[in-house]
Amino acid sequence: MKIPFTKMHGLGNNYIYIDLFHTDLPEERLSELAVKMSNQNTGIGSDGMILIHPAEKAEVGMRIFNKDGSEGMNCGNGLRCTAKYAYETGIVNTKEFSIQTKANVVHAIVKVNEDKEVEEVTIDMGEPILQREQIPMLGETGTTVINEPFQVADEILHVTAVSMGNPHVVTMVDAIDEAPLTRLGSMMEKDERFPEGVNAEFIEVVSDEELHFRVWERGSGITEACGTGACAAVVAATLNNKVTKGKKVIVHLAGGDLVIEWKEDEHIWMTGGAETIASGIFYA
Amino acid sequence: MKIPFTKMHGLGNNYIYIDLFHTDLPEERLSELAVKMSNQNTGIGSDGMILIHPAEKAEVGMRIFNKDGSEGMNCGNGLRCTAKYAYETGIVNTKEFSIQTKANVVHAIVKVNEDKEVEEVTIDMGEPILQREQIPMLGETGTTVINEPFQVADEILHVTAVSMGNPHVVTMVDAIDEAPLTRLGSMMEKDERFPEGVNAEFIEVVSDEELHFRVWERGSGITEACGTGACAAVVAATLNNKVTKGKKVIVHLAGGDLVIEWKEDEHIWMTGGAETIASGIFYA
Repeated sequence: MKIPFTKMHGLGNNYIYIDLFHTDLPEERLSELAVKMSNQNTGIGSDGMILIHPAEKAEVGMRIFNKDGSEGMNCGNGLRCTAKYAYETGIVNTKEFSIQTKANVVHAIVKVNEDKEVEEVTIDMGEPILQREQIPMLGETGTTVINEPFQVADEILHVTAVSMGNPHVVTMVDAIDEAPLTRLGSMMEKDERFPEGVNAEFIEVVSDEELHFRVWERGSGITEACGTGACAAVVAATLNNKVTKGKKVIVHLAGGDLVIEWKEDEHIWMTGGAETIASGIFYA
Repeated sequence: MKIPFTKMHGLGNNYIYIDLFHTDLPEERLSELAVKMSNQNTGIGSDGMILIHPAEKAEVGMRIFNKDGSEGMNCGNGLRCTAKYAYETGIVNTKEFSIQTKANVVHAIVKVNEDKEVEEVTIDMGEPILQREQIPMLGETGTTVINEPFQVADEILHVTAVSMGNPHVVTMVDAIDEAPLTRLGSMMEKDERFPEGVNAEFIEVVSDEELHFRVWERGSGITEACGTGACAAVVAATLNNKVTKGKKVIVHLAGGDLVIEWKEDEHIWMTGGAETIASGIFYA
């Protein structure tokens, strides 16, 4: 079986993209193909496989299969790559369009250069959720978690908790290079106060328009980039009066930069790059 | 810059192959391109880049660049893939031909199925070197190292040392699953009795035509497959009278099987598979 593919990445988060507008793949083989393609030694190698497909509720649909073959809900870095692909290949012919994932429908805007290449993509990531029980985090129902003392091992952090559809706990530190990711990340992820686990972010606020960011991702450990985490970081910095709502904030992740804006209508917009690495035929 | 590529693997040892019979790459960018292409997150992802090129002393030339950008000497798994590529793309049109590497010129034979696909490749790996000082291993000049007591930590192994152009030390064990790779591999690699380091192999001889094999590779640690190591293993088993010279031996590596034959003319022939994973364009 010969499968046309494109490998793309956003801040190093990389997937094999398969265009189901122009190719067919049998549903019963999707999980197996994701595992096969993602294998670094005997496949192309990737974090997983993303299908770009016709959708009912949006101009473009996107399904994510992790490298273990399981199907994911959403992926901020994947959304930017999907938007770039859809525009450059003519699946859409406007610079603003919608993308449907298993989680929801989002709005995307592409910025195009004179060679008709997408240089940058902005995605409406929706509204953050702040209520404790919706994050979810144990404690008094109906409250929020802003700069709350939180003991891990023998250290007392001050944390802010935010859900972007997935749970995040954000801690401000004085110097990002001293963020205790390795020491505390795993313990925070599995802390019983977060019944569904949590992504642990550490941020160093440089100014009201710039911050440094490191992340321990639930299920993955330290990674180079997490789009929803960058959104949660800006929300947390805003709630702690370190940045101003409605202002664009540059977030420096290990894998590169994102610009995050928490607008007055409560929606969070994420802007960042998307890169095409290679395209060709995979021999399945 | 658009670079046509093919990703191939032999027993999971995977490289990006660039065909310099049909494409040009600037010499001064080779090292940088190998690093870029090999990156798992922002490149295609591989163990390195192999150039297939016109050669002076053979029908096909092959240069290996490791994923760190350094140039390698030779690679048994890469030779099989290069032979498959050269035959299937018409660079050669006979089933027996020669390949030049930085180390030497070797003879290759391809086995072709009715679809004109190469199913299996046999490579003449040359003669093993047994003299202690040429391996090199410290001790009495002119002697060989066959079933010699060798203390590591508080354990006394019995080892046989063989060079296949690179140094190997082979230990027979009763059960391959209990081979002390993790416990002793690193110590053996760096043991001062091997002034250039060593690849440490453990083998379980099943019969005079079958053995199990695990390897700790110099500079890489535990890997799935090592072609020269499989050759050294059969030489060691022969020298210890466990297999018969001139007989084909199936070697079970973690990444798959190889068939090794130490012929009466002293040359060692290695037979195994080579797989094409994907082909396309890399956007450098």
